[in-house]
Order: sequence, then structure tokens, then C-alpha cells
Amino acid sequence: MAAPLADQLDIVIPTIRNLDFLEEWRPFFQPYHLIIVQDGDPTKKIHVPEGFDYELYNRNDIERILGDKAWAISFKDSACRCFGFMVSKKKYIYTIDDDCFVAKDPAGKPINVLEQHIKNMLSPSTPFFFNTLYDPYREGTDFVRGYPFSLREGVTTATSHGLWLNIPDYDAPTQMVKPKERNTRFVDAVMTIPKGTLYPMCGMNLAFDRELIGAAMYFGLMGEGQPIGRYDDMWAGWCTKVICDHLGVGCKTGLPYVWHSKASNPFTNLRKEYKGIFWQEEIIPFFQNVTLSKTSTTAEECYVELADKVRKGLGHIDPYFTKLADGMIAWIEGWRMLNPAKTA
Amino acid sequence: MAAPLADQLDIVIPTIRNLDFLEEWRPFFQPYHLIIVQDGDPTKKIHVPEGFDYELYNRNDIERILGDKAWAISFKDSACRCFGFMVSKKKYIYTIDDDCFVAKDPAGKPINVLEQHIKNMLSPSTPFFFNTLYDPYREGTDFVRGYPFSLREGVTTATSHGLWLNIPDYDAPTQMVKPKERNTRFVDAVMTIPKGTLYPMCGMNLAFDRELIGAAMYFGLMGEGQPIGRYDDMWAGWCTKVICDHLGVGCKTGLPYVWHSKASNPFTNLRKEYKGIFWQEEIIPFFQNVTLSKTSTTAEECYVELADKVRKGLGHIDPYFTKLADGMIAWIEGWRMLNPAKTA
Repeated sequence: MAAPLADQLDIVIPTIRNLDFLEEWRPFFQPYHLIIVQDGDPTKKIHVPEGFDYELYNRNDIERILGDKAWAISFKDSACRCFGFMVSKKKYIYTIDDDCFVAKDPAGKPINVLEQHIKNMLSPSTPFFFNTLYDPYREGTDFVRGYPFSLREGVTTATSHGLWLNIPDYDAPTQMVKPKERNTRFVDAVMTIPKGTLYPMCGMNLAFDRELIGAAMYFGLMGEGQPIGRYDDMWAGWCTKVICDHLGVGCKTGLPYVWHSKASNPFTNLRKEYKGIFWQEEIIPFFQNVTLSKTSTTAEECYVELADKVRKGLGHIDPYFTKLADGMIAWIEGWRMLNPAKTA
Repeated sequence: MAAPLADQLDIVIPTIRNLDFLEEWRPFFQPYHLIIVQDGDPTKKIHVPEGFDYELYNRNDIERILGDKAWAISFKDSACRCFGFMVSKKKYIYTIDDDCFVAKDPAGKPINVLEQHIKNMLSPSTPFFFNTLYDPYREGTDFVRGYPFSLREGVTTATSHGLWLNIPDYDAPTQMVKPKERNTRFVDAVMTIPKGTLYPMCGMNLAFDRELIGAAMYFGLMGEGQPIGRYDDMWAGWCTKVICDHLGVGCKTGLPYVWHSKASNPFTNLRKEYKGIFWQEEIIPFFQNVTLSKTSTTAEECYVELADKVRKGLGHIDPYFTKLADGMIAWIEGWRMLNPAKTA
């Protein structure tokens, strides 16, 4: 099996259970290093199948490593995965949920998710103009008539958002209304989300350039002690999209698919989500209109500036957003501690 | 065969030859009324297969009907098709090139283009936020988690841009570099082009709401006597997209596919296109930045305002753009003559 960039990519998996799902991924994941972020009870022993190269962090490790900044990492919520982004030393991250399995393409061939994500990451993005034949860099395709030649070099790709067959990523109300809906449609496309357009970024099957955008890939304050859950990846998606647009780099969505096996409980989800359902109606216009200053030229600088704007622009909704702005700053402090600027 | 909206849609076909290609379309097109715009020599007799309901206009008809505004309709260029949009009395238009045939879906079933275009037109668009599972109104799909509920009603759809299997719609340089490239990939998706994003709209396989956006669907000054060709649909695409964004209505792209049989001559194309290749580098930033005033609330009003902005904003590139702005005004005058405002 091809294992592209095996020395430059870490796979981050948040979990509370034994990682038997890795058996199915073995041919694809075994050449890579895994960072497992154990959520919940740190005394519980998580079983990892033989033969995988991994490091595992539980809550005690997070507290020990981050000290007075550890509170910024969510507990009892898959948002804890962003701790793995912080401790990695690699250029690229791929993160996946432990209820996602190997999907098959329409010809019945198992899909090598990493191969496709890396293809997406290593080929440019085209956020400034829409190409109607989708990814212009794919073999057998190109830019169509009328696509400005000055834009055909594209820009660096920062994120690659993969999709899900079987159980779609629906919110609780939609899960409740359509309990039996399954995604069976394989759309054979990858595209760049245009500049200025927000999208709901799901953390289930996601790759990104850690060096370029990792400092903004904070999954917020969710789970225990917080008024909200299931908005961790959405938060990271809004922040990273706005920052990628500012930096002039690209966000892709589409292939590869994973097989999402299990819908989470819609009643539990509704409890976690319901404040977010109200809040997002104000948060999204905020992110649609936020602008960053020219002096912010790295994800880290942009993120610090954004934290300040969140404090001022969203604080009126709920005290939670002031705390979240503090969390964003604590995250950046932790990031800097673990990822000190390289000296020339 | 289903013939949805047969009494509300005209099919517009620009041509210089006998319309034998209609034989293949017979099961799908026969229930509809055709408007044939004969380009080139008006004394030539165009053969239309038996059994089709049609009206045909040649250059003499265009001169007679439009009088001193006829110069705004291009001659010896498929841009002449927009005359058909003007004389139609129907709510919807579908326009197709005479070298496009019935494509098959991956299961081998012939694709009913009108059925799909009408589905696209009758279901809302979602220009304000990207849905990662594509068209949220399609059966088996919905809005994903994190999609704001206030935006789920969507907005009216104004245009539906269909794609092409076999010969892709490439510019002359790309045709020359990749003479053998064929589009064999069927992407099973329809999506809304986000607000604020421009796209290269191709006129080969296009449907639109004539009442809503028809007044802006002018294909410009191309062909005989003009310094440029093959930018007719691009021009209409930039103008309609900017106006749709202003009016808060949507533009879709994706399904349905047609089978595009014949690549046009790349050398001829290069001669027609080369000025456009330079000019679009300035035209596209112009359209990306143009704003229309709140008092323009119909396509007609927007188009008049846009003509003025084109005159002022693009006139410096070449005297052609001043003439084009005049053409836009002549087009609107012709449109008003043939489509007088309904009195209450």
C-alpha cells in the first residue's frame, strides 16, 4: 500500500474506548505515527491493536504538560483532539473519529483516505474563482474556458475536509426528523471552498497543514463544565476559514469518503447542541464580516487578533464567549510553549 | 417521457445548419416549443426534423423586429442566441448548442436534461453558506450539522448551468495543449455557486428563469465586426452572477450533463479569444468589485446600472467596451419593446 508522507504526517484520534477500529485501517494507517488523545477517565486502559506506532495522552498528561493552560483543552468531548495537534511535531495532521471505517468507491475498491487527503493537500487550491469541472489539477481535468490564466497557479492548500458515506453528519433536529436517512451517494469531486464563503467543517475525517494553519485549529471549550457541545469542529472551521481567506491559502472539501458507522444519540446531541443552534445565527454573520489586519501574517498572529474580536464581537451573546476568547489565548500560549518559533 | 413545464419553457437553439441533432433529442424535446435563431446567411434554408413545434428567426427577421437596435445582436457568432431569449414569452428558457447530444448516466440511462434543469430551477438555491453534502434539497440529502437554520429555506433559483461529457469546454490554449483530453467523469452533484464568487458560465447547456434574470442574459457583441468571440456566455455569466448576488437569488451548476460531440477548431478559437484572454484579467476584478445600488431591484434596472459602470470602469481597456455598454443599453431597449411591463 502507498504510504505517502509517512514521515511528515501524524494521525490524531480522540477516544474513550479500545481502538479496535484500527484493525480495519491497518493496511492504510500502520506506516504512520498515531497520536491518541484519551478522553474521560484517565485511569482506564485503552487497548491499541499490536503493531501500531503511537503515543497516548490522557487527561493527566494534558494537565502535566500544559499546567495552568490545560483548562483550554475540553474534557469529555471530542474537542480534546486538538491537544494532539499541539503536541505533534509533523507538518501534516490527519484526524479521524473512532466510529469511522474504510469506505469503498463505486467500483468496490477500499478507499485510501490518506492518499487522497495528501493529494488534496499537495495540489493547489483555487479560492478566487470557481472551476465548473471541479478540481482543475486532477488528471483528466483542467481549468475551463473563461478561467483567468493569472489564477491558474492556485494557492497553497491548508485544509482538506473529507466526507462520510452511510451516516451523514446531521444535527440533532435533522437526525430526529430523518432517523433512517443514509448517505449512499458517492460524489467523485474535490473542490475549493471559495474565498469569503463559510462552510460547516466536520472533524470526523479532516487533514490540514499543521505548520500553516495548526495554530488556528483550536476546537474550543466544549463538554464538561461548558454550556455547549458538538460545535468544536464548527468553531475551528469558522476560525480557520476566515484565517485561510486572510492568508490567501485554500480549504478543500469532497473526497475522500469514510464509512461512518454509528449515529450518535439525537437526544443527547440536542442537549449539547441547542444553545449552538441559537448562537450560530449570530456567530456566522460575525465570521462573515470579521476582517483581520494586514499586520497579522501567520495563523498564530491571526488567531490572537481573532480572539480579541470574539471577545468584543460575541461577548454580548453569553459570558461563554468571553471565556472562549480566554481559551483561545490560553491555547495559543500552549501552542507557543510546545511549538517555539524556529531560530534561523 | 416526463415533460415538466412544457407550457412554460422555450428551448433556444442558435444554428447555421440543419438541425438533425434534434432526432436524438426527440423523446425529450418534442413536447416543448423551440426558438431557432439562424445565424449567418439568411437565405439558407435550415431543415428542422418533422414533428417539432418551432419558430425560426434569421438575420432578416432580427433586423425587421429590432430595427435600429438590431446591431446589438451579434452576427456570425452563437451569441445571437440571446435574440431567442428576448422574443420568448415563456417563464423559463433552456438553451443548447447543436453539437450537444444525449449523455448517459453511469447506469447507462439517457439523461433527460430538461427534467434535471427544471428540478434545479424549481428547488431553492443556497448562496450564503456552503453545504458540504451539496444540494440539500435532493432526496436522500439534507443540510449538514452547523448549517444555520435561518438559511435553510434558501432563495429562488435564477440559473442552472449544466455540464458536458466527452469534449470539455476548454479555451484554445488548453485545447492545443491537451487535444486528446475528454471528460469521462460523471460528478453526481448540483451546487449553488456561493454569493460573491464568479464562475465561467458556458452557454452550451444552460437554463434560466427568463422573467427573473432574462433582461441580464445578453450575450454581448461578438463575431462579425467585433474584436472578440467566444466570450459571449462568459460575459452573460459575469453580469448575471453579479446581478443575482445583488438580487439575492441563486445560480446553480452541476447536473445535468450533455454529450458534447465536437471540439471547435483551436486555431480559429485562438483568433477569436486572444483579446479576451488579456481583457478578462481586468474584467474579472471589475466584476468582483462592482456594487449595484439598492434602488435597482429588477434585472432590468440592474442591467442599466451595470451598463453605465461598464462604460466607466472598462472603457479604458479598449473602445470596444464603450460600444459594448451601448449594446447593453440597446439590448435593454429591445427587451422592453418586446417585453413591455405588465400593467396591473
